[in-house]
Amino acid sequence: MRTMGLNRLDLVAPERFPHREADAMAAGADDVLAGARIFDTLAAAVADCRWVMGCTARRRSVAMDEYPPDAAARRILGATAQGPAALVFGRERTGLSNEELMLCHAAVHIPSVEDFSSLNLAAAVQVLAWELRRESLAQVQEDAPAPGPVPDEPPASAAQMEGLFEHLAQTLDDIDFHKGRAPDRVMRRLRQLLLRAQPDQREVRVLRGIFSDAQRMARLARGPGSAE
Amino acid sequence: MRTMGLNRLDLVAPERFPHREADAMAAGADDVLAGARIFDTLAAAVADCRWVMGCTARRRSVAMDEYPPDAAARRILGATAQGPAALVFGRERTGLSNEELMLCHAAVHIPSVEDFSSLNLAAAVQVLAWELRRESLAQVQEDAPAPGPVPDEPPASAAQMEGLFEHLAQTLDDIDFHKGRAPDRVMRRLRQLLLRAQPDQREVRVLRGIFSDAQRMARLARGPGSAE
Repeated sequence: MRTMGLNRLDLVAPERFPHREADAMAAGADDVLAGARIFDTLAAAVADCRWVMGCTARRRSVAMDEYPPDAAARRILGATAQGPAALVFGRERTGLSNEELMLCHAAVHIPSVEDFSSLNLAAAVQVLAWELRRESLAQVQEDAPAPGPVPDEPPASAAQMEGLFEHLAQTLDDIDFHKGRAPDRVMRRLRQLLLRAQPDQREVRVLRGIFSDAQRMARLARGPGSAE
Repeated sequence: MRTMGLNRLDLVAPERFPHREADAMAAGADDVLAGARIFDTLAAAVADCRWVMGCTARRRSVAMDEYPPDAAARRILGATAQGPAALVFGRERTGLSNEELMLCHAAVHIPSVEDFSSLNLAAAVQVLAWELRRESLAQVQEDAPAPGPVPDEPPASAAQMEGLFEHLAQTLDDIDFHKGRAPDRVMRRLRQLLLRAQPDQREVRVLRGIFSDAQRMARLARGPGSAE
Protein backbone atom coordinates (compact mmCIF):
# COMPACT_ATOMS: atom_id res chain seq x y z
CA MET A 1 0.00 0.00 0.00
CA ARG A 2 2.88 2.31 0.74
CA THR A 3 4.33 1.89 -2.76
CA MET A 4 0.94 2.89 -4.18
CA GLY A 5 0.78 6.08 -2.12
CA LEU A 6 -1.54 4.87 0.65
CA ASN A 7 -0.44 5.78 4.18
CA ARG A 8 -3.32 5.22 6.55
CA LEU A 9 -3.86 1.73 7.91
CA ASP A 10 -6.53 0.92 10.48
CA LEU A 11 -6.66 -2.51 12.07
CA VAL A 12 -9.75 -4.03 13.64
CA ALA A 13 -9.14 -6.40 16.57
CA PRO A 14 -5.80 -7.76 15.32
CA GLU A 15 -4.72 -11.04 16.92
CA ARG A 16 -1.17 -9.74 17.49
CA PHE A 17 -0.01 -6.18 17.01
CA PRO A 18 2.63 -4.92 16.93
CA HIS A 19 4.41 -8.04 15.76
CA ARG A 20 8.00 -8.48 14.66
CA GLU A 21 6.93 -10.49 11.61
CA ALA A 22 4.87 -7.54 10.43
CA ASP A 23 7.79 -5.21 11.12
CA ALA A 24 10.11 -7.41 9.05
CA MET A 25 7.67 -7.63 6.15
CA ALA A 26 7.11 -3.88 6.12
CA ALA A 27 10.48 -3.57 4.39
CA GLY A 28 10.93 0.10 5.13
CA ALA A 29 7.29 1.12 5.33
CA ASP A 30 7.56 1.16 9.12
CA ASP A 31 5.82 4.53 9.23
CA VAL A 32 2.58 2.92 8.05
CA LEU A 33 2.72 0.29 10.79
CA ALA A 34 3.79 2.82 13.42
CA GLY A 35 0.88 5.05 12.51
CA ALA A 36 -1.71 2.28 12.32
CA ARG A 37 -4.75 2.81 14.50
CA ILE A 38 -6.35 -0.07 16.36
CA PHE A 39 -10.13 -0.46 16.78
CA ASP A 40 -12.24 -3.04 18.54
CA THR A 41 -14.92 -3.05 15.90
CA LEU A 42 -15.26 -2.24 12.23
CA ALA A 43 -18.07 0.16 13.07
CA ALA A 44 -15.68 2.21 15.20
CA ALA A 45 -12.98 2.12 12.54
CA VAL A 46 -15.20 3.55 9.80
CA ALA A 47 -17.12 5.92 12.07
CA ASP A 48 -15.61 9.08 10.54
CA CYS A 49 -15.83 7.87 6.93
CA ARG A 50 -18.17 9.29 4.32
CA TRP A 51 -17.80 6.34 2.00
CA VAL A 52 -16.95 2.73 2.83
CA MET A 53 -16.36 -0.08 0.38
CA GLY A 54 -15.91 -3.72 1.36
CA CYS A 55 -13.86 -6.12 -0.71
CA THR A 56 -15.62 -9.40 -1.27
CA ALA A 57 -14.49 -12.55 -3.00
CA ARG A 58 -17.95 -13.76 -3.97
CA ARG A 59 -21.28 -12.37 -4.92
CA ARG A 60 -23.36 -11.89 -1.83
CA SER A 61 -26.93 -12.77 -1.17
CA VAL A 62 -27.35 -9.35 0.38
CA ALA A 63 -28.60 -6.70 -2.00
CA MET A 64 -25.79 -4.20 -2.37
CA ASP A 65 -24.06 -2.39 -5.18
CA GLU A 66 -20.99 -4.24 -6.38
CA TYR A 67 -18.20 -2.42 -8.23
CA PRO A 68 -15.29 -3.79 -10.22
CA PRO A 69 -11.89 -2.49 -8.99
CA ASP A 70 -11.48 0.39 -11.45
CA ALA A 71 -14.96 1.79 -10.89
CA ALA A 72 -14.50 1.32 -7.14
CA ALA A 73 -11.26 3.29 -7.24
CA ARG A 74 -12.96 6.15 -9.11
CA ARG A 75 -15.83 6.09 -6.62
CA ILE A 76 -13.46 6.20 -3.64
CA LEU A 77 -11.34 8.99 -5.10
CA GLY A 78 -14.49 10.97 -5.82
CA ALA A 79 -15.68 10.42 -2.26
CA THR A 80 -12.44 11.66 -0.71
CA ALA A 81 -13.28 15.13 -1.95
CA GLN A 82 -15.99 15.15 0.73
CA GLY A 83 -14.26 13.34 3.58
CA PRO A 84 -12.43 10.18 4.57
CA ALA A 85 -13.22 7.04 2.61
CA ALA A 86 -12.36 3.47 3.57
CA LEU A 87 -11.59 0.31 1.71
CA VAL A 88 -12.29 -2.65 3.99
CA PHE A 89 -10.67 -6.07 3.70
CA GLY A 90 -11.71 -9.17 5.65
CA ARG A 91 -9.81 -12.12 7.07
CA GLU A 92 -7.45 -14.16 4.94
CA ARG A 93 -9.67 -17.25 4.93
CA THR A 94 -13.20 -16.10 5.57
CA GLY A 95 -13.30 -12.54 4.30
CA LEU A 96 -15.87 -10.09 5.63
CA SER A 97 -18.94 -11.34 7.44
CA ASN A 98 -22.35 -10.27 6.19
CA GLU A 99 -22.68 -8.07 9.28
CA GLU A 100 -19.40 -6.33 8.45
CA LEU A 101 -20.38 -5.92 4.81
CA MET A 102 -23.57 -4.25 5.98
CA LEU A 103 -21.44 -1.42 7.36
CA CYS A 104 -20.24 -0.71 3.83
CA HIS A 105 -21.91 1.53 1.28
CA ALA A 106 -21.02 -0.80 -1.53
CA ALA A 107 -18.92 -3.87 -2.32
CA VAL A 108 -15.85 -4.30 -4.51
CA HIS A 109 -15.35 -7.56 -6.34
CA ILE A 110 -12.15 -8.50 -8.16
CA PRO A 111 -13.22 -10.59 -11.15
CA SER A 112 -10.80 -13.50 -10.93
CA VAL A 113 -11.30 -16.57 -13.11
CA GLU A 114 -14.33 -18.62 -12.15
CA ASP A 115 -12.61 -21.94 -11.60
CA PHE A 116 -9.90 -20.49 -9.39
CA SER A 117 -11.11 -17.45 -7.56
CA SER A 118 -9.23 -17.65 -4.25
CA LEU A 119 -7.21 -14.47 -4.44
CA ASN A 120 -5.27 -14.11 -1.22
CA LEU A 121 -5.55 -11.05 0.97
CA ALA A 122 -2.20 -9.48 0.02
CA ALA A 123 -3.01 -9.91 -3.67
CA ALA A 124 -6.44 -8.32 -3.27
CA VAL A 125 -4.96 -5.39 -1.37
CA GLN A 126 -2.31 -4.97 -4.08
CA VAL A 127 -4.89 -4.96 -6.89
CA LEU A 128 -7.06 -2.34 -5.20
CA ALA A 129 -4.13 -0.21 -4.03
CA TRP A 130 -2.86 -0.24 -7.61
CA GLU A 131 -6.28 0.72 -8.99
CA LEU A 132 -6.40 3.68 -6.61
CA ARG A 133 -2.92 4.66 -7.77
CA ARG A 134 -3.76 4.19 -11.44
CA GLU A 135 -6.98 6.16 -11.25
CA SER A 136 -5.37 8.99 -9.31
CA LEU A 137 -2.53 9.21 -11.86
CA ALA A 138 -5.09 9.14 -14.69
CA GLN A 139 -6.94 12.03 -13.10
CA VAL A 140 -3.72 14.03 -12.80
CA GLN A 141 -2.95 13.32 -16.45
CA GLU A 142 -6.38 14.48 -17.54
CA ASP A 143 -5.62 17.81 -15.95
CA ALA A 144 -2.14 18.06 -17.44
CA PRO A 145 -1.94 18.97 -21.13
CA ALA A 146 1.38 17.30 -21.91
CA PRO A 147 1.66 13.72 -20.66
CA GLY A 148 4.44 11.36 -21.61
CA PRO A 149 8.18 11.74 -21.32
CA VAL A 150 9.94 14.27 -23.50
CA PRO A 151 12.17 12.34 -25.90
CA ASP A 152 15.81 13.28 -25.64
CA GLU A 153 16.12 13.29 -29.40
CA PRO A 154 13.49 14.69 -31.80
CA PRO A 155 11.85 12.28 -34.26
CA ALA A 156 13.08 12.42 -37.82
CA SER A 157 11.15 14.73 -40.11
CA ALA A 158 9.51 13.45 -43.29
CA ALA A 159 12.28 15.14 -45.29
CA GLN A 160 14.93 13.41 -43.20
CA MET A 161 13.19 10.10 -43.77
CA GLU A 162 13.17 10.71 -47.53
CA GLY A 163 16.88 11.51 -47.37
CA LEU A 164 17.38 8.24 -45.52
CA PHE A 165 15.43 6.29 -48.15
CA GLU A 166 17.38 7.85 -51.03
CA HIS A 167 20.62 7.02 -49.28
CA LEU A 168 19.42 3.45 -48.69
CA ALA A 169 18.35 3.02 -52.33
CA GLN A 170 21.73 4.26 -53.53
CA THR A 171 23.51 1.94 -51.10
CA LEU A 172 21.52 -1.09 -52.28
CA ASP A 173 22.56 -0.22 -55.83
CA ASP A 174 26.19 0.16 -54.80
CA ILE A 175 26.40 -3.17 -53.00
CA ASP A 176 24.61 -4.83 -55.93
CA PHE A 177 21.69 -6.00 -53.83
CA HIS A 178 19.08 -6.10 -56.57
CA LYS A 179 20.85 -8.43 -59.00
CA GLY A 180 18.30 -7.75 -61.69
CA ARG A 181 15.22 -7.89 -59.45
CA ALA A 182 12.79 -4.98 -59.36
CA PRO A 183 14.20 -2.45 -56.85
CA ASP A 184 10.85 -0.72 -56.24
CA ARG A 185 9.24 -3.61 -54.45
CA VAL A 186 11.99 -4.10 -51.89
CA MET A 187 12.30 -0.35 -51.33
CA ARG A 188 8.58 -0.15 -50.57
CA ARG A 189 9.01 -2.86 -47.97
CA LEU A 190 12.04 -1.18 -46.40
CA ARG A 191 10.25 2.17 -46.35
CA GLN A 192 7.35 0.62 -44.48
CA LEU A 193 9.66 -1.10 -42.05
CA LEU A 194 11.60 2.07 -41.24
CA LEU A 195 8.52 4.27 -41.07
CA ARG A 196 6.99 1.82 -38.63
CA ALA A 197 10.05 2.11 -36.41
CA GLN A 198 9.72 5.93 -36.36
CA PRO A 199 13.43 6.59 -35.91
CA ASP A 200 14.63 9.69 -34.15
CA GLN A 201 17.23 11.98 -35.72
CA ARG A 202 20.17 10.30 -34.01
CA GLU A 203 19.02 6.90 -35.26
CA VAL A 204 18.79 8.28 -38.79
CA ARG A 205 22.38 9.52 -38.48
CA VAL A 206 23.52 6.08 -37.28
CA LEU A 207 21.76 4.35 -40.19
CA ARG A 208 23.25 6.74 -42.71
CA GLY A 209 26.68 6.18 -41.19
CA ILE A 210 26.24 2.47 -41.79
CA PHE A 211 25.11 3.06 -45.38
CA SER A 212 28.14 5.27 -46.02
CA ASP A 213 30.51 2.58 -44.76
CA ALA A 214 28.82 -0.06 -46.93
CA GLN A 215 29.19 2.30 -49.91
CA ARG A 216 32.83 2.85 -49.08
CA MET A 217 33.42 -0.91 -49.06
CA ALA A 218 31.63 -1.21 -52.41
CA ARG A 219 33.90 1.47 -53.89
CA LEU A 220 36.99 -0.28 -52.55
CA ALA A 221 35.68 -3.59 -53.91
CA ARG A 222 35.42 -2.11 -57.39
CA GLY A 223 39.01 -0.95 -57.16
CA PRO A 224 40.64 2.43 -57.71
CA GLY A 225 39.96 2.40 -61.45
CA SER A 226 36.18 2.43 -61.26
CA ALA A 227 35.15 5.94 -60.29
CA GLU A 228 31.56 5.71 -61.64
CA MET B 1 -1.36 -15.51 -11.91
CA ARG B 2 -3.73 -18.47 -11.87
CA THR B 3 -6.55 -16.41 -10.36
CA MET B 4 -6.11 -13.91 -13.17
CA GLY B 5 -6.39 -16.56 -15.87
CA LEU B 6 -2.69 -16.99 -16.65
CA ASN B 7 -1.50 -20.58 -16.93
CA ARG B 8 1.89 -20.65 -18.53
CA LEU B 9 4.93 -20.12 -16.32
CA ASP B 10 8.49 -20.35 -17.61
CA LEU B 11 11.40 -20.23 -15.19
CA VAL B 12 14.93 -19.23 -16.13
CA ALA B 13 17.71 -20.92 -14.14
CA PRO B 14 15.74 -21.23 -10.87
CA GLU B 15 17.90 -21.82 -7.80
CA ARG B 16 15.64 -24.62 -6.58
CA PHE B 17 12.79 -26.17 -8.51
CA PRO B 18 10.62 -27.99 -7.79
CA HIS B 19 10.52 -26.88 -4.18
CA ARG B 20 8.05 -27.78 -1.45
CA GLU B 21 7.73 -24.17 -0.36
CA ALA B 22 6.57 -23.26 -3.85
CA ASP B 23 4.16 -26.20 -3.81
CA ALA B 24 2.73 -25.06 -0.50
CA MET B 25 2.34 -21.44 -1.65
CA ALA B 26 0.66 -22.49 -4.87
CA ALA B 27 -2.50 -23.06 -2.82
CA GLY B 28 -4.23 -25.21 -5.38
CA ALA B 29 -2.60 -23.82 -8.50
CA ASP B 30 -0.36 -26.89 -8.65
CA ASP B 31 -1.09 -27.29 -12.36
CA VAL B 32 0.81 -24.06 -13.10
CA LEU B 33 3.89 -25.27 -11.22
CA ALA B 34 3.65 -28.77 -12.66
CA GLY B 35 3.51 -27.34 -16.17
CA ALA B 36 6.29 -24.78 -15.66
CA ARG B 37 9.07 -25.03 -18.21
CA ILE B 38 12.69 -24.54 -17.17
CA PHE B 39 15.25 -22.73 -19.32
CA ASP B 40 18.94 -22.01 -18.88
CA THR B 41 18.73 -18.55 -20.39
CA LEU B 42 16.13 -15.87 -20.94
CA ALA B 43 16.94 -15.91 -24.65
CA ALA B 44 15.91 -19.56 -24.84
CA ALA B 45 12.74 -18.93 -22.82
CA VAL B 46 11.48 -16.20 -25.14
CA ALA B 47 12.76 -17.75 -28.38
CA ASP B 48 9.27 -18.54 -29.71
CA CYS B 49 7.74 -15.25 -28.60
CA ARG B 50 6.58 -12.53 -30.96
CA TRP B 51 6.39 -9.88 -28.29
CA VAL B 52 8.41 -9.65 -25.08
CA MET B 53 7.97 -7.06 -22.34
CA GLY B 54 10.28 -6.71 -19.36
CA CYS B 55 9.10 -5.35 -16.03
CA THR B 56 11.49 -2.75 -14.66
CA ALA B 57 11.42 -0.85 -11.40
CA ARG B 58 13.32 2.18 -12.60
CA ARG B 59 13.78 4.23 -15.70
CA ARG B 60 16.70 2.87 -17.69
CA SER B 61 19.52 4.65 -19.40
CA VAL B 62 18.93 2.50 -22.46
CA ALA B 63 16.58 3.97 -25.01
CA MET B 64 13.57 1.70 -25.01
CA ASP B 65 9.84 2.19 -25.07
CA GLU B 66 8.34 2.08 -21.60
CA TYR B 67 4.66 1.32 -21.04
CA PRO B 68 2.50 1.78 -17.96
CA PRO B 69 0.73 -1.43 -16.89
CA ASP B 70 -2.62 -0.83 -18.61
CA ALA B 71 -1.09 0.09 -21.97
CA ALA B 72 1.33 -2.84 -21.60
CA ALA B 73 -1.58 -5.22 -21.05
CA ARG B 74 -3.35 -3.94 -24.15
CA ARG B 75 -0.14 -4.27 -26.14
CA ILE B 76 0.43 -7.84 -24.96
CA LEU B 77 -3.15 -8.89 -25.62
CA GLY B 78 -2.93 -7.41 -29.10
CA ALA B 79 0.32 -9.27 -29.74
CA THR B 80 -1.12 -12.64 -28.70
CA ALA B 81 -3.33 -12.54 -31.79
CA GLN B 82 -0.15 -13.22 -33.77
CA GLY B 83 1.76 -15.60 -31.51
CA PRO B 84 3.09 -16.14 -28.00
CA ALA B 85 3.92 -13.06 -25.94
CA ALA B 86 5.96 -12.94 -22.76
CA LEU B 87 5.98 -10.78 -19.69
CA VAL B 88 9.41 -11.04 -18.06
CA PHE B 89 10.14 -10.44 -14.39
CA GLY B 90 13.60 -10.22 -12.86
CA ARG B 91 15.02 -11.24 -9.51
CA GLU B 92 13.42 -10.11 -6.27
CA ARG B 93 16.28 -7.78 -5.31
CA THR B 94 18.03 -6.80 -8.50
CA GLY B 95 15.38 -7.13 -11.19
CA LEU B 96 16.38 -7.66 -14.82
CA SER B 97 19.91 -6.94 -15.98
CA ASN B 98 20.41 -4.56 -18.88
CA GLU B 99 21.41 -7.55 -21.01
CA GLU B 100 18.14 -9.29 -20.17
CA LEU B 101 16.16 -6.13 -20.83
CA MET B 102 17.82 -5.94 -24.26
CA LEU B 103 15.99 -9.16 -25.17
CA CYS B 104 12.70 -7.34 -24.66
CA HIS B 105 10.77 -5.32 -27.24
CA ALA B 106 9.70 -2.81 -24.62
CA ALA B 107 9.64 -2.24 -20.87
CA VAL B 108 6.75 -2.06 -18.41
CA HIS B 109 7.03 0.25 -15.44
CA ILE B 110 4.58 0.26 -12.54
CA PRO B 111 4.38 3.89 -11.42
CA SER B 112 4.74 3.51 -7.67
CA VAL B 113 5.25 6.56 -5.46
CA GLU B 114 8.59 8.21 -5.90
CA ASP B 115 9.79 8.10 -2.31
CA PHE B 116 8.93 4.44 -1.85
CA SER B 117 9.15 2.57 -5.09
CA SER B 118 10.35 -0.86 -3.98
CA LEU B 119 7.41 -2.96 -5.10
CA ASN B 120 8.22 -6.58 -4.39
CA LEU B 121 8.16 -9.23 -7.09
CA ALA B 122 4.88 -10.87 -6.06
CA ALA B 123 3.17 -7.47 -5.96
CA ALA B 124 4.47 -6.53 -9.41
CA VAL B 125 3.31 -9.85 -10.84
CA GLN B 126 -0.10 -9.35 -9.25
CA VAL B 127 -0.49 -5.85 -10.66
CA LEU B 128 0.38 -6.93 -14.19
CA ALA B 129 -1.61 -10.17 -14.03
CA TRP B 130 -4.59 -8.12 -12.92
CA GLU B 131 -4.10 -5.59 -15.72
CA LEU B 132 -4.08 -8.42 -18.26
CA ARG B 133 -7.26 -9.76 -16.70
CA ARG B 134 -8.91 -6.34 -16.60
CA GLU B 135 -8.02 -5.48 -20.18
CA SER B 136 -9.12 -8.87 -21.47
CA LEU B 137 -12.47 -8.52 -19.68
CA ALA B 138 -12.82 -4.98 -21.05
CA GLN B 139 -12.16 -6.23 -24.56
CA VAL B 140 -14.79 -8.93 -24.20
CA GLN B 141 -17.21 -6.24 -23.09
CA GLU B 142 -16.38 -4.10 -26.07
CA ASP B 143 -17.12 -7.15 -28.19
CA ALA B 144 -13.68 -7.03 -29.73
CA PRO B 145 -13.80 -5.47 -33.22
CA ALA B 146 -11.35 -8.00 -34.68
CA PRO B 147 -7.70 -7.62 -33.62
CA GLY B 148 -6.36 -5.99 -36.75
CA PRO B 149 -5.82 -7.46 -40.19
CA VAL B 150 -4.21 -10.86 -40.40
CA PRO B 151 -0.69 -10.28 -41.74
CA ASP B 152 0.25 -12.21 -44.85
CA GLU B 153 3.65 -12.93 -43.37
CA PRO B 154 4.23 -14.04 -39.78
CA PRO B 155 6.19 -11.69 -37.53
CA ALA B 156 9.77 -12.65 -36.74
CA SER B 157 10.28 -14.69 -33.58
CA ALA B 158 12.64 -13.56 -30.83
CA ALA B 159 15.18 -16.15 -32.01
CA GLN B 160 14.97 -14.82 -35.58
CA MET B 161 15.50 -11.30 -34.28
CA GLU B 162 18.56 -12.42 -32.34
CA GLY B 163 19.91 -14.00 -35.52
CA LEU B 164 19.30 -10.71 -37.31
CA PHE B 165 21.14 -8.74 -34.61
CA GLU B 166 24.13 -11.09 -34.69
CA HIS B 167 24.29 -10.77 -38.46
CA LEU B 168 24.04 -6.99 -38.19
CA ALA B 169 26.81 -6.83 -35.56
CA GLN B 170 29.07 -8.96 -37.73
CA THR B 171 28.31 -6.78 -40.76
CA LEU B 172 29.13 -3.59 -38.88
CA ASP B 173 32.45 -5.14 -37.94
CA ASP B 174 33.12 -6.20 -41.51
CA ILE B 175 32.42 -2.79 -43.02
CA ASP B 176 34.52 -1.16 -40.28
CA PHE B 177 31.66 0.90 -38.93
CA HIS B 178 32.89 1.25 -35.37
CA LYS B 179 36.33 2.74 -36.04
CA GLY B 180 37.35 2.31 -32.46
CA ARG B 181 34.08 3.49 -30.93
CA ALA B 182 32.22 1.27 -28.45
CA PRO B 183 30.11 -1.16 -30.49
CA ASP B 184 27.70 -1.99 -27.65
CA ARG B 185 26.07 1.38 -27.53
CA VAL B 186 25.22 1.56 -31.21
CA MET B 187 24.04 -2.06 -31.22
CA ARG B 188 21.68 -1.30 -28.34
CA ARG B 189 20.22 1.57 -30.36
CA LEU B 190 19.86 -0.52 -33.48
CA ARG B 191 18.25 -3.36 -31.53
CA GLN B 192 15.66 -1.02 -30.14
CA LEU B 193 15.01 0.52 -33.53
CA LEU B 194 14.46 -2.86 -35.17
CA LEU B 195 12.45 -4.32 -32.29
CA ARG B 196 10.20 -1.27 -32.46
CA ALA B 197 9.60 -1.90 -36.15
CA GLN B 198 8.58 -5.52 -35.44
CA PRO B 199 9.69 -6.87 -38.78
CA ASP B 200 7.96 -9.88 -40.26
CA GLN B 201 9.92 -12.90 -41.43
CA ARG B 202 10.17 -11.71 -45.01
CA GLU B 203 11.52 -8.36 -43.89
CA VAL B 204 14.13 -10.13 -41.77
CA ARG B 205 15.17 -12.09 -44.87
CA VAL B 206 15.45 -8.88 -46.89
CA LEU B 207 17.56 -7.21 -44.20
CA ARG B 208 19.85 -10.22 -43.92
CA GLY B 209 20.20 -10.23 -47.70
CA ILE B 210 21.37 -6.63 -47.53
CA PHE B 211 23.82 -7.45 -44.74
CA SER B 212 25.22 -10.36 -46.77
CA ASP B 213 25.82 -8.13 -49.79
CA ALA B 214 27.55 -5.50 -47.65
CA GLN B 215 29.73 -8.26 -46.18
CA ARG B 216 30.52 -9.51 -49.66
CA MET B 217 31.64 -6.02 -50.69
CA ALA B 218 33.80 -5.79 -47.56
CA ARG B 219 35.46 -9.10 -48.44
CA LEU B 220 36.09 -7.92 -51.97
CA ALA B 221 37.43 -4.60 -50.68
CA ARG B 222 39.98 -6.47 -48.55
CA GLY B 223 41.16 -8.28 -51.64
CA PRO B 224 41.49 -11.97 -52.42
CA GLY B 225 44.46 -12.42 -50.10
CA SER B 226 42.63 -11.54 -46.89
CA ALA B 227 40.47 -14.51 -46.08
CA GLU B 228 40.00 -13.62 -42.39
